Amino acid sequence: MRNHRPCALLAHADRGARKFSFWTVSHVFQTSLTHDETMMTDTSPLALPFPDMPAIDGVTLRVARAGYKDWGRCDLTYAELAEGTAVAGVFTQNVCCSSEVELGREQARLGKARALVVNAGNSNAFTGYRGREAVEQIMAQVASHLHCEPSEVFVSSTGVIGVPLPRDKAQAGVAAALDAAPCGWQDAAETIGTTDTFAKGAMATAVVDGSTITLCGIIKGSGMIAPDMATMLGYVFTDAAVEPAFLQECLSSANVATFSCITVDSDTSTSDTVLAFATGKAGNAPLASFDSPGADAFAAALADVCRQLAHLVVRDGEGASKFIEVRVSGAVSDESARRIGLAIANSPLVKTAIAGEDANWGRVVMAVGKAGEPADRDRLSIGFGGVWAARDGLPLADYDEAPVAQHLKGKEIGVEVDIGLGEGAATVWTCDLTHGYISINADYRS
Amino acid sequence: MRNHRPCALLAHADRGARKFSFWTVSHVFQTSLTHDETMMTDTSPLALPFPDMPAIDGVTLRVARAGYKDWGRCDLTYAELAEGTAVAGVFTQNVCCSSEVELGREQARLGKARALVVNAGNSNAFTGYRGREAVEQIMAQVASHLHCEPSEVFVSSTGVIGVPLPRDKAQAGVAAALDAAPCGWQDAAETIGTTDTFAKGAMATAVVDGSTITLCGIIKGSGMIAPDMATMLGYVFTDAAVEPAFLQECLSSANVATFSCITVDSDTSTSDTVLAFATGKAGNAPLASFDSPGADAFAAALADVCRQLAHLVVRDGEGASKFIEVRVSGAVSDESARRIGLAIANSPLVKTAIAGEDANWGRVVMAVGKAGEPADRDRLSIGFGGVWAARDGLPLADYDEAPVAQHLKGKEIGVEVDIGLGEGAATVWTCDLTHGYISINADYRS
Repeated sequence: MRNHRPCALLAHADRGARKFSFWTVSHVFQTSLTHDETMMTDTSPLALPFPDMPAIDGVTLRVARAGYKDWGRCDLTYAELAEGTAVAGVFTQNVCCSSEVELGREQARLGKARALVVNAGNSNAFTGYRGREAVEQIMAQVASHLHCEPSEVFVSSTGVIGVPLPRDKAQAGVAAALDAAPCGWQDAAETIGTTDTFAKGAMATAVVDGSTITLCGIIKGSGMIAPDMATMLGYVFTDAAVEPAFLQECLSSANVATFSCITVDSDTSTSDTVLAFATGKAGNAPLASFDSPGADAFAAALADVCRQLAHLVVRDGEGASKFIEVRVSGAVSDESARRIGLAIANSPLVKTAIAGEDANWGRVVMAVGKAGEPADRDRLSIGFGGVWAARDGLPLADYDEAPVAQHLKGKEIGVEVDIGLGEGAATVWTCDLTHGYISINADYRS
Repeated sequence: MRNHRPCALLAHADRGARKFSFWTVSHVFQTSLTHDETMMTDTSPLALPFPDMPAIDGVTLRVARAGYKDWGRCDLTYAELAEGTAVAGVFTQNVCCSSEVELGREQARLGKARALVVNAGNSNAFTGYRGREAVEQIMAQVASHLHCEPSEVFVSSTGVIGVPLPRDKAQAGVAAALDAAPCGWQDAAETIGTTDTFAKGAMATAVVDGSTITLCGIIKGSGMIAPDMATMLGYVFTDAAVEPAFLQECLSSANVATFSCITVDSDTSTSDTVLAFATGKAGNAPLASFDSPGADAFAAALADVCRQLAHLVVRDGEGASKFIEVRVSGAVSDESARRIGLAIANSPLVKTAIAGEDANWGRVVMAVGKAGEPADRDRLSIGFGGVWAARDGLPLADYDEAPVAQHLKGKEIGVEVDIGLGEGAATVWTCDLTHGYISINADYRS
């Protein structure tokens, strides 16, 4: 854990604080996270350490306590962005989306950003005009401070549905954040989290037009994670100079193969948002299209960060004990392959079989068949970890289950499906379905 | 439990036998199911007693042991049907369906049936030409015995996927069944079961053209249950005289509002089938359309039996502790309402919330929003057990959670959703998602 930490994180007896407790304890005692068994109890067994991420020129991070819940931790994140920062976004397709998503979608179209505010502990969804007024208040408060347009202030909220964001707490929290000392990526990643069990960040660099540009991303999400849109709250910051329209094109394209290809529980949140901010401080000639020098390198680096962030969310899937990669080939199209992959990744029977380390390929067949996509039972092949269990619609006569059983004991599981009809291919990622998911979601009281 | 029982049911250490053990024990000791705690351990807490169902003229039931698994119980059910019996069927939409489904779909179009054979313990799905040959062998064997066309012999199989039905065991099992003494409905209902924890039957009567006609149905199903088709294996027998085309019309219509409105786990089986057989022995003038006297009464009685059977499957949902009825109104169409209802009923977060007796209406909002159907966040109302928690997009200011909390402690849960846009309505049924589902499906080895 890093040392600078602008507000104390104290243990509390609610769900958010419970899952955050390993940060709390490590802060108080200054011990190492990985050397205290008691701290690790609630952390996902698939967690990865937070990477060492550099500052991005033009981005200043601050966190504060708004006290949206009685949890004694920072829950308001503020990112100040240099003048001239371009923005792009992808948002949930859930039609019962929050005011933050409605407003953010309009703001992203304008392409300009000066600040981001993220509230944790209250999603402000399904709160009607009162919720919208709270968001507009935050936008006005920050715009007044920065002397910018309210539309350049982006707001996200995550947490319980149906309770309007308290305007007094938001106002005091924003004021505290504007006064706070700058902090690092991990502090921001921790502060945007709710039920997350570890802080999630990813970075990449690319050489664009002779300049080395850097991308840093943070993300939160653990349950209510489903595909077909940008899920969760994720933010990517880069010092590259990128025109807003091209930034949007790159983000949308990356989204299709990353955030839209993960699922934890098939449930699509009302608030999910991924925003990309480009401050332009790296000094490259602004990227305007794929004809711009270095545009390919930038797009690849952005997609790489998005893929890393998407994987981190799956690794923190509620109750997850195994990270599952489903590779579908031979479908009639890439989109058909993605839908088949998601039918497999969302199947409770497939997910519980993998939790039980059972190479139950019959359940994979079932999931392929229910996907509503072209498939031919007698051309279908299924494998685990690179070993085929069934080919062309029949169980393999000489199928050796031993290496498959060994593979399924691991934490990184591969499921391969060849539809046998065409050239369409896709890879999707999910986690297994365990008692942990039931415990977390049946015990959680709204 | 009824006394006649043509083959002993002995306890075995596999999954099917474990869940059947209460029948086993009750048979050996001739005790009452409801008065022995130890017998009830594995029975669904939502189970209903098997109804007292009369014989249907023209239907003779027999059961035998084919030994598809090493479980020492009857696993082959044979129903002989009088000459002139009409048949109709609805089948799974899973494109990786079994040979039984492929053949049954063709046979049902011909409208004539003389026999039904149901194999339990092996679904014969994903077994290619070898699976198909096993089915054709059974059809030929029975047709030879009855001097009828093979197409008049319907075969269903349920159990593990990917293992061809052993032809020698099938042949000996059919021969034993043809020799066996007739049995009753409960014996047949038990014998078609696999992971079911209780035997499921339903009946109805109607007066048609001056004749009292009777319908008796049996069904099996517990997991891999999802809507949008006929799910599970279900059979309805009636002594009414009904033309095949009209029988199909009535069954398809009943299916839309019953079997297509239930879900346990969103996973659609490869084998599911519902067949209706009409022997014509009741003496009514054959029903040919809704213009025939008594046709409405017959259709209503058939729909009633289908609804009862569908509910029984939900009551035996894997791990179920609560029976949930989701009533959607105010949608733009009935079909839209059904899709919204199923999005709610399939949501792991809604199902775990109800398992935890938590009136988490925010998760219901989320599920409405992800359904892909027209909805307006600010017109949406959500209630539990007849008490509104939110109206017109806002939490109720005077919401009293006490009666809702009390309602959620029960075993029969109502969730009401008013979309506020139109006149479309639908009711769907599901069960909660508990640790039991995980235990059953993560511990089960294929």
